[in-house]
Amino acid sequence: MPNRSRGSSRPSRQIVPGAAPGQLRVPKDAPPPVLQVFAYGPDGMVEGRLEAPSEVTALREKWPVVWLDVRGLGDGEVLRRLGELFGLHRLALEDVVNVPQRPKMETYPEHHFLVIQQVDSKDFKDHEQVSLFVGEGFVLTFQEHEGDWFDGVRERIRKGHGLIRKEGADYLTYALLDAAVDSYFPALEDLGEELEAFEDRIMKEASTGLIAEVRDMKRSLLHMRRQAWPQRETVGQFLRAEEDWISHETRTHLRDCYDHAVQVLDLIETHREMASGLLDFHMTVMGQRMNEIMKVLTIMASLFIPLSFMAGLYGMNFDTASPWNLPELSWRFGYPALLGAMGLTAGGMLYYFWRKGWIGKGPEDKSRP
Amino acid sequence: MPNRSRGSSRPSRQIVPGAAPGQLRVPKDAPPPVLQVFAYGPDGMVEGRLEAPSEVTALREKWPVVWLDVRGLGDGEVLRRLGELFGLHRLALEDVVNVPQRPKMETYPEHHFLVIQQVDSKDFKDHEQVSLFVGEGFVLTFQEHEGDWFDGVRERIRKGHGLIRKEGADYLTYALLDAAVDSYFPALEDLGEELEAFEDRIMKEASTGLIAEVRDMKRSLLHMRRQAWPQRETVGQFLRAEEDWISHETRTHLRDCYDHAVQVLDLIETHREMASGLLDFHMTVMGQRMNEIMKVLTIMASLFIPLSFMAGLYGMNFDTASPWNLPELSWRFGYPALLGAMGLTAGGMLYYFWRKGWIGKGPEDKSRP
Amino acid sequence: MPNRSRGSSRPSRQIVPGAAPGQLRVPKDAPPPVLQVFAYGPDGMVEGRLEAPSEVTALREKWPVVWLDVRGLGDGEVLRRLGELFGLHRLALEDVVNVPQRPKMETYPEHHFLVIQQVDSKDFKDHEQVSLFVGEGFVLTFQEHEGDWFDGVRERIRKGHGLIRKEGADYLTYALLDAAVDSYFPALEDLGEELEAFEDRIMKEASTGLIAEVRDMKRSLLHMRRQAWPQRETVGQFLRAEEDWISHETRTHLRDCYDHAVQVLDLIETHREMASGLLDFHMTVMGQRMNEIMKVLTIMASLFIPLSFMAGLYGMNFDTASPWNLPELSWRFGYPALLGAMGLTAGGMLYYFWRKGWIGKGPEDKSRP
Amino acid sequence: MPNRSRGSSRPSRQIVPGAAPGQLRVPKDAPPPVLQVFAYGPDGMVEGRLEAPSEVTALREKWPVVWLDVRGLGDGEVLRRLGELFGLHRLALEDVVNVPQRPKMETYPEHHFLVIQQVDSKDFKDHEQVSLFVGEGFVLTFQEHEGDWFDGVRERIRKGHGLIRKEGADYLTYALLDAAVDSYFPALEDLGEELEAFEDRIMKEASTGLIAEVRDMKRSLLHMRRQAWPQRETVGQFLRAEEDWISHETRTHLRDCYDHAVQVLDLIETHREMASGLLDFHMTVMGQRMNEIMKVLTIMASLFIPLSFMAGLYGMNFDTASPWNLPELSWRFGYPALLGAMGLTAGGMLYYFWRKGWIGKGPEDKSRP
Amino acid sequence: MPNRSRGSSRPSRQIVPGAAPGQLRVPKDAPPPVLQVFAYGPDGMVEGRLEAPSEVTALREKWPVVWLDVRGLGDGEVLRRLGELFGLHRLALEDVVNVPQRPKMETYPEHHFLVIQQVDSKDFKDHEQVSLFVGEGFVLTFQEHEGDWFDGVRERIRKGHGLIRKEGADYLTYALLDAAVDSYFPALEDLGEELEAFEDRIMKEASTGLIAEVRDMKRSLLHMRRQAWPQRETVGQFLRAEEDWISHETRTHLRDCYDHAVQVLDLIETHREMASGLLDFHMTVMGQRMNEIMKVLTIMASLFIPLSFMAGLYGMNFDTASPWNLPELSWRFGYPALLGAMGLTAGGMLYYFWRKGWIGKGPEDKSRP
Repeated sequence: MPNRSRGSSRPSRQIVPGAAPGQLRVPKDAPPPVLQVFAYGPDGMVEGRLEAPSEVTALREKWPVVWLDVRGLGDGEVLRRLGELFGLHRLALEDVVNVPQRPKMETYPEHHFLVIQQVDSKDFKDHEQVSLFVGEGFVLTFQEHEGDWFDGVRERIRKGHGLIRKEGADYLTYALLDAAVDSYFPALEDLGEELEAFEDRIMKEASTGLIAEVRDMKRSLLHMRRQAWPQRETVGQFLRAEEDWISHETRTHLRDCYDHAVQVLDLIETHREMASGLLDFHMTVMGQRMNEIMKVLTIMASLFIPLSFMAGLYGMNFDTASPWNLPELSWRFGYPALLGAMGLTAGGMLYYFWRKGWIGKGPEDKSRP
Repeated sequence: MPNRSRGSSRPSRQIVPGAAPGQLRVPKDAPPPVLQVFAYGPDGMVEGRLEAPSEVTALREKWPVVWLDVRGLGDGEVLRRLGELFGLHRLALEDVVNVPQRPKMETYPEHHFLVIQQVDSKDFKDHEQVSLFVGEGFVLTFQEHEGDWFDGVRERIRKGHGLIRKEGADYLTYALLDAAVDSYFPALEDLGEELEAFEDRIMKEASTGLIAEVRDMKRSLLHMRRQAWPQRETVGQFLRAEEDWISHETRTHLRDCYDHAVQVLDLIETHREMASGLLDFHMTVMGQRMNEIMKVLTIMASLFIPLSFMAGLYGMNFDTASPWNLPELSWRFGYPALLGAMGLTAGGMLYYFWRKGWIGKGPEDKSRP
Repeated sequence: MPNRSRGSSRPSRQIVPGAAPGQLRVPKDAPPPVLQVFAYGPDGMVEGRLEAPSEVTALREKWPVVWLDVRGLGDGEVLRRLGELFGLHRLALEDVVNVPQRPKMETYPEHHFLVIQQVDSKDFKDHEQVSLFVGEGFVLTFQEHEGDWFDGVRERIRKGHGLIRKEGADYLTYALLDAAVDSYFPALEDLGEELEAFEDRIMKEASTGLIAEVRDMKRSLLHMRRQAWPQRETVGQFLRAEEDWISHETRTHLRDCYDHAVQVLDLIETHREMASGLLDFHMTVMGQRMNEIMKVLTIMASLFIPLSFMAGLYGMNFDTASPWNLPELSWRFGYPALLGAMGLTAGGMLYYFWRKGWIGKGPEDKSRP
Repeated sequence: MPNRSRGSSRPSRQIVPGAAPGQLRVPKDAPPPVLQVFAYGPDGMVEGRLEAPSEVTALREKWPVVWLDVRGLGDGEVLRRLGELFGLHRLALEDVVNVPQRPKMETYPEHHFLVIQQVDSKDFKDHEQVSLFVGEGFVLTFQEHEGDWFDGVRERIRKGHGLIRKEGADYLTYALLDAAVDSYFPALEDLGEELEAFEDRIMKEASTGLIAEVRDMKRSLLHMRRQAWPQRETVGQFLRAEEDWISHETRTHLRDCYDHAVQVLDLIETHREMASGLLDFHMTVMGQRMNEIMKVLTIMASLFIPLSFMAGLYGMNFDTASPWNLPELSWRFGYPALLGAMGLTAGGMLYYFWRKGWIGKGPEDKSRP
Repeated sequence: MPNRSRGSSRPSRQIVPGAAPGQLRVPKDAPPPVLQVFAYGPDGMVEGRLEAPSEVTALREKWPVVWLDVRGLGDGEVLRRLGELFGLHRLALEDVVNVPQRPKMETYPEHHFLVIQQVDSKDFKDHEQVSLFVGEGFVLTFQEHEGDWFDGVRERIRKGHGLIRKEGADYLTYALLDAAVDSYFPALEDLGEELEAFEDRIMKEASTGLIAEVRDMKRSLLHMRRQAWPQRETVGQFLRAEEDWISHETRTHLRDCYDHAVQVLDLIETHREMASGLLDFHMTVMGQRMNEIMKVLTIMASLFIPLSFMAGLYGMNFDTASPWNLPELSWRFGYPALLGAMGLTAGGMLYYFWRKGWIGKGPEDKSRP
């Protein structure tokens, strides 16, 4: 899993400087495309799988809105054929295949081309590109593989909930954009909970491994931000697009979607600040522990070093024939007196340490805020 | 309390990517709504509680300004009914229920919709959303629960103090915005005092728990800033709204309110810089303590290690039959001479430490600036 | 002094959320107002103290420019009376009393209202608000208490130096703005010198107290910047004000004043960077000291620990009857041989430490850059 | 290699303040120029090397597009001659020779002058300037030496792949810009992989040498960013240039190229954040190790210091004639009792350390995240 | 030298808040002015020193361009006289004398006034202000003292190299601006080399003195940036000045000069980032050393402490009459057995340290990257 998150932060495609533009270099391990189609209007809807791209023409003539959802990019021929049918520009088709692209919107005479990113529905740390072409009466989406956040939209088309069947391709585009933008919320909520759990873990462990995990999260957030910034811009561009067929109602909803995109960015920034704070916190906890270790060492060493010296003193073999040499050795109460002196010394040291606050308030009551 | 502040920094609502927009998912634990109404004009005012939303229609016909304050979001039916009565957009109603929203202003044909945040009147670390609809002759506010900062406004309406009864719904909106913006000042003052108290606490303790507290404060400030930035923008948008029914006098007052919103941001930034400084300060204090601990250890060890060595030397059992082996042991003044040598050594070490400034200036006079 | 600087960084007024705007809550400990008036024209000037605000009307009729300087905000009645005489807006009067305000300029039909901040003439770490109303033919200033930086302006009016008597109220406003902006220079020069002196102090002490002082300075600079940013904006707004009665000559001088305001900001930023650098420097010096302490400990311990072990070895009481047990004890030159071995060991350690650069270059020649 | 990367981050040319502008100071070690020419149209193409600059005139008359590629700047005379033939401004020619310049576009009446930077095709840490003049029907490029990223473009001209032979000089300019911009991707991919490998290396080594390497990378990235920022701007300027001879198709492709330039910047920023994170990580790993070292020392010292003291105590030579002096020495089980006491002490210490988490969880299971 | 660099980072002039503007307070230690004049046209030139300012009038009538270069600001009378002759504004003259000013351009009816900064030609860490008045047919420059970067310009006038004699005062202004901007390059190159040399020095020393040097450099760079930012702006303003007498050719050259000013800023920022990196590097090197010191201490202490304990054990004086008391002492091979046990213990410890990587890879092979 960490490998995936790392992998996704750099372009997987192999850009060959100087190569001709507009070439469809289909990714090698891409799954073959599945062409799911929804055609609907206020009065009804049909849903099905296309065998060949050309079948879509008949549907477009019959229904007000046709949504062709291509899942899997593994067949360059199908893509080229769709490009001809819908009049897609070669550079746009290249962007469909060369994943990942930054979210963006480009305007062509016949259609708009939007690149958006949704959080992977299985692994929240990965992303999946959705390339979306929208023109009057059709929406064409390309996804890297099966599994997305659009099931709610599909259900609303099937059941005719809300406005979706009454409005045109503009509203469908909004619904898809909104689902992609909202896909960040569960991922961010997950991350937020992980970040909060970290604080306690740092208090307990403060190991290097934890730091590597925090760095992984920061990298995920950095990667998310790289997607979310242009995503917001893309929603804003579509919101402001000067097209007659984008209804006032849809624009009101897009404004709402734009709000969500702003909130996503907001959350990402907050999480990033929290993650940065965790690293500082880790340093502090580590410093605190070092202080504690040093305190134990200092107390033990300082306590016993003078006592050992005293013991060493009376272990010397001076010739006690001379009355000047270690007369204490022959005192009647020499040993008890020495023990007393040692006790006094140790007591003095302990008092000094206690006054300095090194003992008597153990690590337990320090951790109480 | 820390839990609350953490909880409030992430959206509590459950966003379901792909779900239909404009649905009123009433929060589960929301209290049932209380509909308090103020209807007033220059000549008088009435105040009361509505049983049913529809009672407001009669009041609107009779009085120049009607303020309907809905406290508690627990009944979706009441909200829907109010939405119909006042012609509110479904997306706006959704924002009323899906708390918290970022502060914002949206313009609809019939009314303006403002989302503002006030500091919770009981727990300064939490926020409460106020959703405000304003049109000609009415102000409609939605709050999450009882308890707000608007009692001063209510009192001014009751007593007819100041301009409030003479002006229209625009001035009432200003008064509510101003109260919400000003609600940050007591909270920030509180935080400021806590921050200043921390410096002394760090000097005394410098424990990990303190750092966790500072981090909590930083998070509160981060959360506040996330509200205060768009709040300022919202006040500015209303100030610049091109509506005839916003009087010149109200705009002058809104400019003043905008100033306050800027000051709130200013204070938040200052507090954030202070909180950041505290973490550095904590690191410094901790480093200082480590130095002190190390100094004690170094002094104790360096002082006694050579002395212990000397004592060890004369504790050896060399056969003193040979005149080369430890002849000092049989000197008449061997022991006093050794004690003298030890004293000189210790004195030399102490002098060296004193010259280095490690002793003689205890921690007490270091803390004197 | 630290208390003052702290106190000034947060609003001293008690904002009551929801209270009616435009109320004159006179600060409790404010001194009673002194009304000094200057009335002048190209041909002469009079100077005096007014007993009652109404006396100013006669002067305004007679002289081209009247400057009424109110020092002390302790009497709400006098302020209200002046407000009526000069037609001042209630919100502006409220800002006069609720010190401190952010510097700003507001335009009213009859006059401009400027809030500016001057450095306190006695305590450079504090600020004093000057509220200035300027209209055609009059300047009205409110100061919190006696003591300001305007004596130079007063002297120029008295002696007729420079352009001041020849120009109108616009030029007087410029002169006052300029004096307030320039009041930052002595304070910043003071701070700059303190900051430079700190580097040497850190080299000598590096105590926690020093850090607290640096933090105090940073806070003062932070506070200054909070004033200086809007101050620059205020000068710029007045410079661009579209009023006929602001002469071309005055605008040229205001451009100069704006330059000074930019320079003040520039200096503040430079000082802030220097102060931040000092904290890093402190950390480095502390780390350096820790290294030094550790070096002494390591050298002492490493030197004597093996020697003590050797001495301990020959202090054992093995039964020397067996020829295998400590035969060295009965050698003729056992003791000298041991001393030699000890000398060699110590010499080897010292050579190792010297090669590592731990001894032979004392702290003295390290401090040489 | 590190030397090159350092060298390239500062201007290699010797700017002489006050010298006359527009002088062609040819770099001393520059290779002599090679003039490769491509002349082509929809119907065919010729390719060859020119002996003298003047030969280009005939080609320009015959073919729609002429691309003269000058590799090597070692002959001022050739440059001057080309300047005359194509009407190039002296200041532009000076910029051709004074490498490196910041990427920029300048508009002259007859032509546009673009400075772009490509990553060196051999050493990814170095850059090579491409100076490009484009007018109707010709593109003139100057490179510092042989070796570039344009072989793909040359191949497309030769084989007539894509649009290149059908379009004019504008499309060729796009193709060259695109190749230069894309040249950053392989270099950045390389750097990205190195950065990721570093994390593991830091876990293993954490030496100062590693830090020097990370700093080298950061410097490379800093240098790249200094090129990539104005590069993006340059592409944008050409994209927006108001020239009839830039076709709509070319502009669509330039928009794509601009996207790539933005992506380059994006990657550079991400890599820079990762590199900064590595330094923090290194600090943490180092701190972790210090903690571990200290723990070992503390455990060893704390364990044996009390035991040594006990042993020292019973090594004293008190006169056992007095019953008060060391009576334990003559107990029957004195020695076993002492050993038992020592064992208990050591066990207590070990239990204390284990409870603190210092032993029993070795470094191995700490490194498990 | 450090004193100079510090001194120059704060205004040397004594600003007196409230003083009248436009007063010529000549700096006390300023040298007396030297008036060098160049008068030239396409056909010839004269050069000389003026005794009195009024002599310039005759030259202005005769020659198309007159450049009067005043070096030294020590005589207020001469400045006032020049002010009258050329019609200079008093505030501009004040800025000439009150050095240093921020670079800026001000437009007066008769002339433009430019303040620029050149790096001091002797001490690269200091700056010298050049105040430049330019009108049709004349350029008037004021410098603080002899010694500048304009000798190249003078030589070009004398020899008639390049365009300078053919163009007017606008081109001369460009030439002077360009020389001042370019004066930063040698200084920055110097600084860059110093910075690179520092890395090696830190690896060797890592003393506090080094840090003070790095801070000095950072301060120099901070100071340079404070000059270079407005300098770029000043060149840009002159480039965009709407004056007929600034020829198209000069504007093309000014664009080039603007490029240089941008490059200066670029280099300053790069150097600043490098200097910041050095501080981090220093911290890392210091931390590395601390680790090394601790390692030595830990190895020595951990190795000998158990051995000393063993020796102490057998130095005890238990009454060996009891067979339970220290029976080992009377073993035949007690001493060799103990030595063996000690060797095993030491060997175990060494193996443990070697496995931890503390020994066997000395500091030498760590420094290998």
